[in-house]
Amino acid sequence: MDSIKNRRTIRKYTSQDIPNDLLNELLEDAFRASTMGNMQLYSVVVTRDIAMKKKLSPAHFHQPMVISAPVVLTFCADFNRFSKWCLYRKAEPGYDNPISFLNAATDALLVTQNFCTLAEEKGLGICYLGTTVYNPDQIIEILHLPKLVMPIATITVGYPDEQPEQPDRLPLSGIVHEEIYHDYTREAIDSIYAYKESLPENKHFVEINHTETLAQIFTDIRYKKSDNENMSETLHATLRKQGFEKD
Amino acid sequence: MDSIKNRRTIRKYTSQDIPNDLLNELLEDAFRASTMGNMQLYSVVVTRDIAMKKKLSPAHFHQPMVISAPVVLTFCADFNRFSKWCLYRKAEPGYDNPISFLNAATDALLVTQNFCTLAEEKGLGICYLGTTVYNPDQIIEILHLPKLVMPIATITVGYPDEQPEQPDRLPLSGIVHEEIYHDYTREAIDSIYAYKESLPENKHFVEINHTETLAQIFTDIRYKKSDNENMSETLHATLRKQGFEKD
Repeated sequence: MDSIKNRRTIRKYTSQDIPNDLLNELLEDAFRASTMGNMQLYSVVVTRDIAMKKKLSPAHFHQPMVISAPVVLTFCADFNRFSKWCLYRKAEPGYDNPISFLNAATDALLVTQNFCTLAEEKGLGICYLGTTVYNPDQIIEILHLPKLVMPIATITVGYPDEQPEQPDRLPLSGIVHEEIYHDYTREAIDSIYAYKESLPENKHFVEINHTETLAQIFTDIRYKKSDNENMSETLHATLRKQGFEKD
Repeated sequence: MDSIKNRRTIRKYTSQDIPNDLLNELLEDAFRASTMGNMQLYSVVVTRDIAMKKKLSPAHFHQPMVISAPVVLTFCADFNRFSKWCLYRKAEPGYDNPISFLNAATDALLVTQNFCTLAEEKGLGICYLGTTVYNPDQIIEILHLPKLVMPIATITVGYPDEQPEQPDRLPLSGIVHEEIYHDYTREAIDSIYAYKESLPENKHFVEINHTETLAQIFTDIRYKKSDNENMSETLHATLRKQGFEKD
Protein backbone atom coordinates (compact mmCIF):
# COMPACT_ATOMS: atom_id res chain seq x y z
CA MET A 1 0.00 0.00 0.00
CA ASP A 2 2.74 2.42 -0.94
CA SER A 3 0.17 4.55 -2.72
CA ILE A 4 -1.40 5.44 0.65
CA LYS A 5 1.94 5.93 2.36
CA ASN A 6 3.33 8.15 -0.40
CA ARG A 7 0.17 9.99 -1.29
CA ARG A 8 -0.09 13.67 -2.06
CA THR A 9 -2.98 15.77 -3.24
CA ILE A 10 -2.87 16.43 -6.99
CA ARG A 11 -4.27 19.73 -8.24
CA LYS A 12 -2.84 19.74 -11.78
CA TYR A 13 -3.95 17.17 -14.33
CA THR A 14 -2.87 16.23 -17.85
CA SER A 15 -5.43 16.47 -20.65
CA GLN A 16 -5.85 12.67 -20.64
CA ASP A 17 -9.45 11.66 -20.00
CA ILE A 18 -10.56 8.90 -17.62
CA PRO A 19 -12.28 6.06 -19.49
CA ASN A 20 -15.81 5.42 -18.28
CA ASP A 21 -15.07 1.73 -17.73
CA LEU A 22 -12.20 2.55 -15.40
CA LEU A 23 -14.25 5.10 -13.48
CA ASN A 24 -17.11 2.66 -13.07
CA GLU A 25 -14.79 -0.11 -11.94
CA LEU A 26 -13.27 2.16 -9.30
CA LEU A 27 -16.70 3.25 -8.07
CA GLU A 28 -18.03 -0.29 -7.99
CA ASP A 29 -15.07 -1.48 -5.93
CA ALA A 30 -15.31 1.58 -3.65
CA PHE A 31 -18.90 0.58 -2.83
CA ARG A 32 -17.47 -2.47 -1.03
CA ALA A 33 -16.78 -0.22 1.99
CA SER A 34 -18.65 -0.91 5.22
CA THR A 35 -22.18 0.50 5.11
CA MET A 36 -24.77 0.74 7.88
CA GLY A 37 -27.03 -2.32 7.72
CA ASN A 38 -26.00 -2.73 4.07
CA MET A 39 -28.30 0.17 3.21
CA GLN A 40 -25.70 1.94 0.99
CA LEU A 41 -26.82 5.42 1.98
CA TYR A 42 -25.00 7.33 -0.75
CA SER A 43 -25.15 8.47 -4.34
CA VAL A 44 -22.43 9.82 -6.60
CA VAL A 45 -22.95 12.48 -9.25
CA VAL A 46 -20.36 12.39 -12.05
CA THR A 47 -19.54 15.70 -13.72
CA ARG A 48 -17.70 15.61 -17.06
CA ASP A 49 -19.62 18.29 -18.96
CA ILE A 50 -17.69 21.57 -19.06
CA ALA A 51 -20.89 23.60 -18.72
CA MET A 52 -21.71 21.75 -15.49
CA LYS A 53 -18.17 22.24 -14.18
CA LYS A 54 -18.51 25.98 -14.78
CA LYS A 55 -21.76 25.98 -12.84
CA LEU A 56 -20.15 24.12 -9.92
CA SER A 57 -17.04 26.27 -9.87
CA PRO A 58 -18.40 29.20 -7.76
CA ALA A 59 -19.71 26.75 -5.11
CA HIS A 60 -16.10 25.61 -4.73
CA PHE A 61 -14.80 29.20 -4.53
CA HIS A 62 -13.46 28.92 -8.10
CA GLN A 63 -10.72 26.43 -7.19
CA PRO A 64 -9.29 25.74 -10.68
CA MET A 65 -9.37 21.92 -10.35
CA VAL A 66 -13.15 21.91 -10.79
CA ILE A 67 -12.71 23.14 -14.37
CA SER A 68 -9.37 21.52 -15.20
CA ALA A 69 -9.96 17.97 -13.92
CA PRO A 70 -11.49 15.57 -16.45
CA VAL A 71 -13.88 14.25 -13.80
CA VAL A 72 -15.50 15.85 -10.76
CA LEU A 73 -17.35 13.54 -8.37
CA THR A 74 -19.88 14.74 -5.81
CA PHE A 75 -20.47 12.12 -3.11
CA CYS A 76 -23.83 12.58 -1.41
CA ALA A 77 -25.42 11.30 1.76
CA ASP A 78 -28.61 9.74 0.35
CA PHE A 79 -31.64 8.51 2.28
CA ASN A 80 -33.94 9.32 -0.65
CA ARG A 81 -33.43 6.07 -2.57
CA PHE A 82 -33.80 3.90 0.53
CA SER A 83 -36.88 5.81 1.72
CA LYS A 84 -38.52 5.49 -1.70
CA TRP A 85 -37.87 1.74 -1.60
CA CYS A 86 -39.58 1.62 1.82
CA LEU A 87 -42.60 3.58 0.57
CA TYR A 88 -43.03 1.27 -2.41
CA ARG A 89 -42.82 -1.74 -0.07
CA LYS A 90 -45.52 -0.78 2.45
CA ALA A 91 -42.90 0.34 4.97
CA GLU A 92 -42.89 3.75 6.69
CA PRO A 93 -39.38 5.28 6.49
CA GLY A 94 -38.24 7.28 9.52
CA TYR A 95 -35.01 8.81 8.27
CA ASP A 96 -35.87 12.53 8.20
CA ASN A 97 -33.72 13.32 11.22
CA PRO A 98 -30.14 14.34 12.16
CA ILE A 99 -28.87 10.88 13.15
CA SER A 100 -29.92 9.55 9.75
CA PHE A 101 -28.03 12.39 8.08
CA LEU A 102 -24.93 11.47 10.09
CA ASN A 103 -25.32 7.78 9.23
CA ALA A 104 -25.66 8.54 5.52
CA ALA A 105 -22.79 11.05 5.61
CA THR A 106 -20.63 8.38 7.24
CA ASP A 107 -21.50 5.83 4.55
CA ALA A 108 -20.71 8.43 1.87
CA LEU A 109 -17.36 9.40 3.38
CA LEU A 110 -16.14 5.80 3.75
CA VAL A 111 -16.92 5.27 0.08
CA THR A 112 -15.21 8.55 -0.84
CA GLN A 113 -11.97 7.52 0.84
CA ASN A 114 -12.17 4.05 -0.67
CA PHE A 115 -12.56 5.61 -4.12
CA CYS A 116 -9.55 7.87 -3.55
CA THR A 117 -7.37 4.93 -2.52
CA LEU A 118 -8.40 2.89 -5.54
CA ALA A 119 -7.95 5.80 -7.95
CA GLU A 120 -4.48 6.57 -6.62
CA GLU A 121 -3.53 2.90 -6.84
CA LYS A 122 -4.37 3.11 -10.56
CA GLY A 123 -2.07 6.11 -11.05
CA LEU A 124 -4.75 8.79 -10.89
CA GLY A 125 -4.44 11.87 -8.70
CA ILE A 126 -7.20 13.32 -6.58
CA CYS A 127 -8.00 16.51 -4.74
CA TYR A 128 -10.54 16.54 -1.90
CA LEU A 129 -12.63 19.73 -1.91
CA GLY A 130 -13.74 20.65 1.59
CA THR A 131 -15.86 23.43 0.10
CA THR A 132 -18.75 21.02 -0.56
CA VAL A 133 -20.24 21.49 2.90
CA TYR A 134 -19.67 25.26 2.80
CA ASN A 135 -22.03 25.85 -0.11
CA PRO A 136 -24.25 22.78 -0.15
CA ASP A 137 -27.30 24.85 -1.13
CA GLN A 138 -25.69 25.88 -4.43
CA ILE A 139 -24.56 22.34 -5.23
CA ILE A 140 -28.03 20.96 -4.47
CA GLU A 141 -29.58 23.31 -6.98
CA ILE A 142 -27.02 22.68 -9.71
CA LEU A 143 -27.10 18.88 -9.39
CA HIS A 144 -30.90 18.70 -8.80
CA LEU A 145 -30.53 16.88 -5.48
CA PRO A 146 -33.94 16.00 -4.00
CA LYS A 147 -34.94 15.89 -0.32
CA LEU A 148 -32.94 13.50 1.88
CA VAL A 149 -29.88 13.93 -0.36
CA MET A 150 -27.03 16.12 0.84
CA PRO A 151 -23.66 16.69 -0.91
CA ILE A 152 -20.88 15.74 1.48
CA ALA A 153 -17.61 15.45 -0.45
CA THR A 154 -16.28 16.50 -3.84
CA ILE A 155 -13.28 14.88 -5.46
CA THR A 156 -11.54 16.10 -8.58
CA VAL A 157 -9.79 13.29 -10.47
CA GLY A 158 -7.33 13.09 -13.32
CA TYR A 159 -3.89 11.94 -14.37
CA PRO A 160 -1.25 13.87 -12.40
CA ASP A 161 0.63 16.69 -14.09
CA GLU A 162 2.67 17.56 -10.99
CA GLN A 163 4.57 15.82 -8.22
CA PRO A 164 4.28 18.09 -5.20
CA GLU A 165 6.17 17.64 -1.93
CA GLN A 166 4.43 15.42 0.57
CA PRO A 167 2.93 17.61 3.32
CA ASP A 168 4.02 17.21 6.94
CA ARG A 169 2.01 15.26 9.49
CA LEU A 170 1.90 15.55 13.27
CA PRO A 171 3.81 12.84 15.18
CA LEU A 172 1.78 9.69 15.85
CA SER A 173 2.09 10.17 19.60
CA GLY A 174 0.23 13.45 19.28
CA ILE A 175 -2.84 11.75 17.84
CA VAL A 176 -3.04 8.26 19.36
CA HIS A 177 -4.17 7.77 22.97
CA GLU A 178 -3.74 4.55 24.96
CA GLU A 179 -6.93 3.43 26.79
CA ILE A 180 -8.10 6.94 27.67
CA TYR A 181 -7.73 10.38 26.12
CA HIS A 182 -4.82 12.18 27.72
CA ASP A 183 -5.55 15.85 27.34
CA TYR A 184 -2.77 18.05 26.00
CA THR A 185 -0.56 20.09 28.29
CA ARG A 186 1.20 23.17 27.00
CA GLU A 187 4.41 21.13 26.84
CA ALA A 188 2.70 18.43 24.78
CA ILE A 189 1.33 21.02 22.34
CA ASP A 190 4.75 22.63 22.00
CA SER A 191 6.30 19.26 21.22
CA ILE A 192 3.57 18.06 18.82
CA TYR A 193 3.61 21.24 16.73
CA ALA A 194 7.38 21.89 16.88
CA TYR A 195 8.21 20.22 13.56
CA LYS A 196 5.33 21.90 11.71
CA GLU A 197 6.35 25.30 13.05
CA SER A 198 10.00 24.73 12.14
CA LEU A 199 9.33 24.11 8.43
CA PRO A 200 10.74 26.83 6.16
CA GLU A 201 7.54 26.98 4.09
CA ASN A 202 5.49 27.61 7.22
CA LYS A 203 7.88 30.28 8.44
CA HIS A 204 7.63 31.89 5.00
CA PHE A 205 3.83 31.64 5.24
CA VAL A 206 3.88 33.57 8.51
CA GLU A 207 6.15 36.18 6.98
CA ILE A 208 4.09 36.90 3.87
CA ASN A 209 0.85 36.93 5.87
CA HIS A 210 2.31 39.35 8.43
CA THR A 211 1.06 37.32 11.39
CA GLU A 212 2.91 36.67 14.61
CA THR A 213 2.27 32.91 14.68
CA LEU A 214 1.35 30.14 12.25
CA ALA A 215 -1.86 29.45 14.20
CA GLN A 216 -3.04 32.99 13.52
CA ILE A 217 -3.08 32.25 9.79
CA PHE A 218 -5.73 29.63 10.52
CA THR A 219 -7.81 31.65 13.00
CA ASP A 220 -7.54 35.08 11.34
CA ILE A 221 -7.32 34.29 7.62
CA ARG A 222 -8.11 30.74 6.52
CA TYR A 223 -10.70 29.34 8.95
CA LYS A 224 -12.23 32.29 10.76
CA LYS A 225 -14.82 32.07 13.51
CA SER A 226 -17.22 34.40 11.69
CA ASP A 227 -17.00 32.31 8.50
CA ASN A 228 -17.51 29.10 10.48
CA GLU A 229 -20.59 30.57 12.15
CA ASN A 230 -22.06 31.70 8.85
CA MET A 231 -21.37 28.32 7.26
CA SER A 232 -22.94 26.58 10.27
CA GLU A 233 -26.12 28.60 9.63
CA THR A 234 -26.09 27.57 5.97
CA LEU A 235 -25.49 23.95 6.96
CA HIS A 236 -28.47 23.84 9.30
CA ALA A 237 -30.73 25.72 6.88
CA THR A 238 -29.77 23.28 4.13
CA LEU A 239 -30.30 20.23 6.34
CA ARG A 240 -33.77 21.59 7.15
CA LYS A 241 -34.49 22.19 3.45
CA GLN A 242 -33.33 18.68 2.57
CA GLY A 243 -35.57 17.21 5.27
CA PHE A 244 -32.92 15.98 7.72
CA GLU A 245 -33.78 18.53 10.44
CA LYS A 246 -36.98 20.03 11.77
CA ASP A 247 -37.55 23.79 12.16
CA MET B 1 -6.43 -3.80 -4.56
CA ASP B 2 -8.15 -7.13 -4.33
CA SER B 3 -8.47 -6.65 -0.58
CA ILE B 4 -11.00 -3.86 -1.18
CA LYS B 5 -12.81 -5.72 -3.94
CA ASN B 6 -13.10 -8.94 -1.94
CA ARG B 7 -13.65 -7.42 1.47
CA ARG B 8 -16.08 -8.69 4.06
CA THR B 9 -16.71 -7.61 7.62
CA ILE B 10 -15.00 -9.90 10.15
CA ARG B 11 -16.74 -10.39 13.50
CA LYS B 12 -14.81 -13.44 14.77
CA TYR B 13 -11.11 -13.19 15.58
CA THR B 14 -8.39 -15.66 16.53
CA SER B 15 -6.63 -15.19 19.86
CA GLN B 16 -3.57 -13.76 18.07
CA ASP B 17 -2.71 -10.29 19.29
CA ILE B 18 -1.79 -7.35 17.06
CA PRO B 19 1.78 -6.16 17.66
CA ASN B 20 1.99 -2.54 18.70
CA ASP B 21 4.50 -1.78 15.95
CA LEU B 22 2.12 -3.05 13.29
CA LEU B 23 -0.81 -1.11 14.73
CA ASN B 24 1.23 2.09 14.88
CA GLU B 25 2.49 1.62 11.33
CA LEU B 26 -1.09 1.19 10.07
CA LEU B 27 -2.27 4.27 11.96
CA GLU B 28 0.65 6.38 10.80
CA ASP B 29 0.03 5.46 7.17
CA ALA B 30 -3.73 6.01 7.60
CA PHE B 31 -3.01 9.58 8.71
CA ARG B 32 -1.83 10.27 5.14
CA ALA B 33 -5.49 10.71 4.14
CA SER B 34 -6.65 14.12 2.95
CA THR B 35 -7.30 16.48 5.86
CA MET B 36 -8.82 19.96 5.89
CA GLY B 37 -6.04 22.53 5.69
CA ASN B 38 -3.66 19.88 7.02
CA MET B 39 -5.16 20.41 10.47
CA GLN B 40 -5.56 16.66 11.20
CA LEU B 41 -8.79 17.09 13.14
CA TYR B 42 -8.89 13.63 14.70
CA SER B 43 -7.64 11.50 17.57
CA VAL B 44 -7.69 7.74 18.02
CA VAL B 45 -8.16 5.98 21.33
CA VAL B 46 -6.72 2.45 21.41
CA THR B 47 -8.47 -0.05 23.70
CA ARG B 48 -6.61 -3.27 24.56
CA ASP B 49 -7.39 -3.53 28.28
CA ILE B 50 -10.18 -6.03 28.93
CA ALA B 51 -11.62 -3.90 31.73
CA MET B 52 -11.97 -0.99 29.30
CA LYS B 53 -13.56 -3.25 26.68
CA LYS B 54 -16.13 -4.34 29.23
CA LYS B 55 -16.92 -0.73 30.01
CA LEU B 56 -17.35 0.09 26.30
CA SER B 57 -19.46 -2.98 25.57
CA PRO B 58 -22.88 -1.60 26.69
CA ALA B 59 -22.37 1.56 24.59
CA HIS B 60 -22.12 -0.77 21.59
CA PHE B 61 -25.23 -2.72 22.60
CA HIS B 62 -23.06 -5.62 23.79
CA GLN B 63 -21.92 -6.60 20.31
CA PRO B 64 -19.48 -9.41 21.17
CA MET B 65 -16.62 -8.10 18.97
CA VAL B 66 -15.90 -5.33 21.47
CA ILE B 67 -14.80 -7.94 24.00
CA SER B 68 -13.42 -10.60 21.65
CA ALA B 69 -11.29 -8.42 19.34
CA PRO B 70 -7.70 -7.87 20.47
CA VAL B 71 -7.94 -4.17 19.60
CA VAL B 72 -10.82 -1.71 19.61
CA LEU B 73 -10.21 1.70 18.04
CA THR B 74 -12.36 4.74 18.67
CA PHE B 75 -11.83 7.41 16.01
CA CYS B 76 -12.80 10.86 17.23
CA ALA B 77 -13.49 14.19 15.59
CA ASP B 78 -11.04 16.41 17.49
CA PHE B 79 -10.86 20.21 17.50
CA ASN B 80 -9.49 20.23 21.05
CA ARG B 81 -5.82 19.71 20.15
CA PHE B 82 -5.90 22.29 17.35
CA SER B 83 -7.77 24.84 19.50
CA LYS B 84 -5.28 24.40 22.34
CA TRP B 85 -2.44 25.01 19.88
CA CYS B 86 -4.17 28.22 18.79
CA LEU B 87 -4.63 29.40 22.39
CA TYR B 88 -0.96 28.79 23.18
CA ARG B 89 0.01 30.74 20.05
CA LYS B 90 -1.94 33.96 20.67
CA ALA B 91 -4.64 32.92 18.19
CA GLU B 92 -8.37 32.87 18.99
CA PRO B 93 -9.88 29.53 17.84
CA GLY B 94 -13.42 29.68 16.40
CA TYR B 95 -14.27 26.00 16.07
CA ASP B 96 -17.08 25.60 18.61
CA ASN B 97 -19.76 25.28 15.95
CA PRO B 98 -21.55 22.66 13.80
CA ILE B 99 -19.53 23.15 10.60
CA SER B 100 -16.33 22.54 12.56
CA PHE B 101 -17.82 19.34 13.94
CA LEU B 102 -18.65 18.20 10.41
CA ASN B 103 -15.17 19.11 9.18
CA ALA B 104 -13.51 17.17 12.00
CA ALA B 105 -15.89 14.22 11.60
CA THR B 106 -15.00 14.14 7.90
CA ASP B 107 -11.27 14.11 8.67
CA ALA B 108 -11.83 11.31 11.18
CA LEU B 109 -13.89 9.18 8.80
CA LEU B 110 -11.41 9.45 5.94
CA VAL B 111 -8.70 8.24 8.31
CA THR B 112 -10.97 5.46 9.60
CA GLN B 113 -11.53 4.07 6.12
CA ASN B 114 -7.85 4.41 5.28
CA PHE B 115 -6.98 2.43 8.40
CA CYS B 116 -9.46 -0.31 7.49
CA THR B 117 -8.01 -0.66 3.99
CA LEU B 118 -4.45 -0.87 5.31
CA ALA B 119 -5.39 -3.35 8.05
CA GLU B 120 -7.20 -5.62 5.59
CA GLU B 121 -4.28 -5.45 3.19
CA LYS B 122 -2.12 -6.82 6.04
CA GLY B 123 -4.49 -9.76 6.57
CA LEU B 124 -6.40 -8.33 9.50
CA GLY B 125 -10.19 -8.29 9.66
CA ILE B 126 -12.27 -5.34 10.81
CA CYS B 127 -15.82 -4.63 11.90
CA TYR B 128 -17.23 -1.10 11.73
CA LEU B 129 -19.52 -0.36 14.69
CA GLY B 130 -22.21 2.14 13.75
CA THR B 131 -23.28 2.24 17.39
CA THR B 132 -20.63 4.87 18.22
CA VAL B 133 -22.89 7.77 17.28
CA TYR B 134 -25.90 6.20 19.02
CA ASN B 135 -24.35 6.35 22.49
CA PRO B 136 -21.63 8.97 22.17
CA ASP B 137 -22.33 10.27 25.70
CA GLN B 138 -21.36 6.92 27.26
CA ILE B 139 -18.21 6.62 25.17
CA ILE B 140 -17.16 10.18 26.03
CA GLU B 141 -17.36 9.38 29.73
CA ILE B 142 -15.52 6.06 29.50
CA LEU B 143 -12.69 7.39 27.32
CA HIS B 144 -12.46 10.77 29.12
CA LEU B 145 -13.03 12.78 25.95
CA PRO B 146 -12.82 16.52 26.63
CA LYS B 147 -14.79 19.33 24.97
CA LEU B 148 -14.43 19.59 21.18
CA VAL B 149 -13.79 15.85 20.93
CA MET B 150 -16.59 13.60 19.68
CA PRO B 151 -16.40 9.82 19.02
CA ILE B 152 -17.40 9.16 15.44
CA ALA B 153 -16.40 5.60 14.49
CA THR B 154 -15.37 2.44 16.29
CA ILE B 155 -13.46 -0.36 14.59
CA THR B 156 -12.79 -3.77 16.09
CA VAL B 157 -9.63 -5.36 14.67
CA GLY B 158 -8.07 -8.80 14.80
CA TYR B 159 -6.92 -11.77 12.77
CA PRO B 160 -9.95 -13.36 11.04
CA ASP B 161 -11.41 -16.56 12.44
CA GLU B 162 -14.18 -16.75 9.84
CA GLN B 163 -14.65 -16.29 6.10
CA PRO B 164 -18.23 -15.08 5.70
CA GLU B 165 -20.03 -14.70 2.37
CA GLN B 166 -19.56 -11.36 0.73
CA PRO B 167 -22.76 -9.30 1.14
CA ASP B 168 -24.73 -8.12 -1.88
CA ARG B 169 -24.45 -4.59 -3.25
CA LEU B 170 -26.94 -2.58 -5.30
CA PRO B 171 -26.15 -2.29 -9.02
CA LEU B 172 -23.80 0.58 -9.90
CA SER B 173 -26.45 2.22 -12.08
CA GLY B 174 -28.64 2.57 -9.01
CA ILE B 175 -26.08 4.73 -7.24
CA VAL B 176 -24.19 6.69 -9.90
CA HIS B 177 -25.81 9.67 -11.65
CA GLU B 178 -24.49 11.30 -14.81
CA GLU B 179 -24.30 15.14 -14.61
CA ILE B 180 -27.50 15.55 -12.55
CA TYR B 181 -29.34 13.43 -10.01
CA HIS B 182 -32.07 11.47 -11.74
CA ASP B 183 -34.69 10.82 -9.11
CA TYR B 184 -35.95 7.25 -8.77
CA THR B 185 -39.21 6.15 -10.38
CA ARG B 186 -41.08 3.18 -9.01
CA GLU B 187 -39.74 1.12 -11.91
CA ALA B 188 -36.17 2.15 -11.10
CA ILE B 189 -36.62 1.19 -7.44
CA ASP B 190 -38.09 -2.16 -8.42
CA SER B 191 -35.14 -2.86 -10.67
CA ILE B 192 -32.43 -1.62 -8.26
CA TYR B 193 -33.71 -3.69 -5.32
CA ALA B 194 -34.77 -6.80 -7.31
CA TYR B 195 -31.57 -8.75 -6.72
CA LYS B 196 -31.45 -7.93 -2.99
CA GLU B 197 -35.08 -8.99 -2.59
CA SER B 198 -34.51 -12.21 -4.51
CA LEU B 199 -31.72 -13.48 -2.22
CA PRO B 200 -32.70 -16.60 -0.25
CA GLU B 201 -31.21 -15.20 2.98
CA ASN B 202 -33.32 -12.07 2.66
CA LYS B 203 -36.46 -14.09 1.95
CA HIS B 204 -35.67 -16.17 5.01
CA PHE B 205 -35.17 -12.96 6.99
CA VAL B 206 -38.65 -11.79 6.04
CA GLU B 207 -40.09 -15.16 7.00
CA ILE B 208 -38.57 -15.39 10.47
CA ASN B 209 -39.39 -11.75 11.22
CA HIS B 210 -43.01 -12.23 10.12
CA THR B 211 -43.01 -9.07 8.02
CA GLU B 212 -44.62 -8.63 4.63
CA THR B 213 -41.62 -7.03 2.97
CA LEU B 214 -37.86 -6.82 3.48
CA ALA B 215 -38.09 -3.03 3.84
CA GLN B 216 -40.37 -3.46 6.87
CA ILE B 217 -37.54 -5.20 8.73
CA PHE B 218 -35.60 -1.96 8.46
CA THR B 219 -38.43 0.44 9.28
CA ASP B 220 -40.21 -1.64 11.96
CA ILE B 221 -37.37 -3.58 13.62
CA ARG B 222 -33.80 -2.52 12.85
CA TYR B 223 -33.83 1.23 12.17
CA LYS B 224 -37.08 2.57 13.61
CA LYS B 225 -38.24 6.18 13.37
CA SER B 226 -38.72 6.45 17.15
CA ASP B 227 -35.19 5.15 17.80
CA ASN B 228 -33.76 7.53 15.20
CA GLU B 229 -35.56 10.45 16.81
CA ASN B 230 -34.31 9.52 20.29
CA MET B 231 -30.76 9.09 19.01
CA SER B 232 -31.00 12.44 17.21
CA GLU B 233 -31.85 14.05 20.56
CA THR B 234 -28.85 12.36 22.17
CA LEU B 235 -26.63 13.44 19.29
CA HIS B 236 -27.60 17.10 19.61
CA ALA B 237 -27.39 17.05 23.41
CA THR B 238 -23.92 15.51 23.18
CA LEU B 239 -22.74 17.98 20.54
CA ARG B 240 -23.90 20.79 22.85
CA LYS B 241 -22.11 19.22 25.81
CA GLN B 242 -18.91 18.82 23.76
CA GLY B 243 -19.10 22.45 22.71
CA PHE B 244 -19.89 22.02 19.00
CA GLU B 245 -23.42 23.43 19.23
CA LYS B 246 -25.06 26.27 21.13
CA ASP B 247 -28.21 25.86 23.24
